[in-house]
Amino acid sequence: MAWQGTIRPGADRISVEVLDQRLLPYRETWISLRGLADARAAIADMAARGAGLIGNVAAYGMWLAGLEIISDKPDMETFLSRLRQAAECLKSARPTAGNLAWGVDRLLALAVGQTSPESALAALDEGARELARSEAEACRRIGEHGLKLIAASAKQGTPVNILTHCNAGKLAFVDWGSALAPVYAAHAAGISVHVWVDETRPRNQGARLTAWELAESGVPHTLITDNAGGHLMRRGMVDMVIVGADRVTRRGDVANKIGTYLKALAARDNNVPFYAALPASTFDLALLKGDDIPIEERDGDEVRRVEGQTRDGSLAEVLLCPKRTAARNWAFDVTPAELVTGLICEHGICRANEADIAALLKMA
Amino acid sequence: MAWQGTIRPGADRISVEVLDQRLLPYRETWISLRGLADARAAIADMAARGAGLIGNVAAYGMWLAGLEIISDKPDMETFLSRLRQAAECLKSARPTAGNLAWGVDRLLALAVGQTSPESALAALDEGARELARSEAEACRRIGEHGLKLIAASAKQGTPVNILTHCNAGKLAFVDWGSALAPVYAAHAAGISVHVWVDETRPRNQGARLTAWELAESGVPHTLITDNAGGHLMRRGMVDMVIVGADRVTRRGDVANKIGTYLKALAARDNNVPFYAALPASTFDLALLKGDDIPIEERDGDEVRRVEGQTRDGSLAEVLLCPKRTAARNWAFDVTPAELVTGLICEHGICRANEADIAALLKMA
Repeated sequence: MAWQGTIRPGADRISVEVLDQRLLPYRETWISLRGLADARAAIADMAARGAGLIGNVAAYGMWLAGLEIISDKPDMETFLSRLRQAAECLKSARPTAGNLAWGVDRLLALAVGQTSPESALAALDEGARELARSEAEACRRIGEHGLKLIAASAKQGTPVNILTHCNAGKLAFVDWGSALAPVYAAHAAGISVHVWVDETRPRNQGARLTAWELAESGVPHTLITDNAGGHLMRRGMVDMVIVGADRVTRRGDVANKIGTYLKALAARDNNVPFYAALPASTFDLALLKGDDIPIEERDGDEVRRVEGQTRDGSLAEVLLCPKRTAARNWAFDVTPAELVTGLICEHGICRANEADIAALLKMA
Repeated sequence: MAWQGTIRPGADRISVEVLDQRLLPYRETWISLRGLADARAAIADMAARGAGLIGNVAAYGMWLAGLEIISDKPDMETFLSRLRQAAECLKSARPTAGNLAWGVDRLLALAVGQTSPESALAALDEGARELARSEAEACRRIGEHGLKLIAASAKQGTPVNILTHCNAGKLAFVDWGSALAPVYAAHAAGISVHVWVDETRPRNQGARLTAWELAESGVPHTLITDNAGGHLMRRGMVDMVIVGADRVTRRGDVANKIGTYLKALAARDNNVPFYAALPASTFDLALLKGDDIPIEERDGDEVRRVEGQTRDGSLAEVLLCPKRTAARNWAFDVTPAELVTGLICEHGICRANEADIAALLKMA
């Protein structure tokens, strides 16, 4: 499977296609989204997932909603009223991701600035495409900035060992990724890197997605359990941790995939630098503290069961515990700013505190 | 499946039966061990696992070895020479577990004190049975001591929330367990408890074994991923952590299932008490520092694949990552004494430092 991106407008000009990440690495299947309900379902069911990609699907979802609304030939007031309802519907698909609301609100503002439903629809179309373009460029620049950190850690004869959690790579965005962008940039620059890939229970985005995309790009990597990172850090086998982020507050608290906080604690205990990489759109400056970020709780069956490939190549789901066992399943945790060595975004690298974040974003 | 223990001498007086824990919670199958090779394989392949049970299987393995050796009618010198080889063979089955060498050496010393192969064999037989009896009693007393900690945390109207990692329950010993002994004692005393069960990748001893034995005993519990404990502690949803131990050094560093260290870091960061529970036999007073404990590395396939139950009730193994992905798999990590609030053993509870451990063991 060669890299074909994660999202693209349909050739029919009335749909959007997304790569169904629930079937990777075993099947490459694209889903066609044909309206608001499809877009919301793709996000809620995690066919499309990842901090940035969610925002892009939602942005295209606003355009798809606009297409549906305009077929009823509404006046501008009605068009905007229904578009606002669509925006709320999309935003409620997943509660923690900062880019979801950001992408939706950005598209809504573009429509509000127009004078007719037709021009609003055109603005939504162009806005969604522009968001994808600008995000890919932001991720490319995250890679350029993060590359300097990796280059500074490079040693003769041994790779720079980078631990990452979940998937904050190409698959989580339109291209490049956030946490993996510096890795791809370093690899392209000829710096020897090796990635420790946390499997990332319960949905195994590390084992399934990060391992897949690193292999596609020829980046050396090794799969480990989520339990193993602390041991590796105690043994000096990790030079830095780079993770993505689903939402970052004004003071630099980082909401990311559940388990990130544990890795940040181990990094501090072993003097391993811990970075979160994110486009500036992931900052939620309306929130000061991470404890105010709503944390999504998902179905316990995601913990009780797991899907994988059987020896004959088919996909199967197996139960991992007694039938009667109850499970709970929070999708994210918050790493407090004090544990974060630095934040890497398209504008540069800053420390995780209110003043430094504000200064970096002002330079944008 | 009612509780029938983990190990028992065969009715034929020439074998030992162990519950095959690789098939739990789906099948209750007993394996008959008929010699040294069988005993070693049961430990190495993890049909019998758990800090204490390994020592008991090895002790019975010494008796089985004695049975094999004596059939060649050796003189005492030859008997002991071959028994020493059997001891080394058993000890090499798994490198990290402290009770393995302890059980083997204890049995070897009993044989060495005898004057004939026949009396040595009788001593091995009685010694293995006595070890099982005394260990069950030690675990019962661990429960009595630990119960006081839980009772002190009990609040009106809400259960005491205890997080545990891996399986350090009945299944890991002859009975009661170490980490779970206080839980069973509290439950029996009418104290409301609830256990957060880490699934414990890659072999899922939490999801498979701890969830099973807690349900058998009617103790309320909820399965979570290994990633979730930090989030729960930040939210005030964990009153204490109790884990088992595979080896504890003179200064109180604790080797236990990989991932334990990450939970200890989270406990410290959130002022949650972190206890390790262990029979005194798990102390390795020859070692000062945890970094000197050899850490077993197992086959990466344990990370790449997982076994579970399909919808038709059969067991199946599925691949969790791309076929070409490499994985590494360390089985244990070391939690430094500084992160341990207390050690619970059959002689009482002490802080994790050299002086307090020595004082507690002197009282024995």
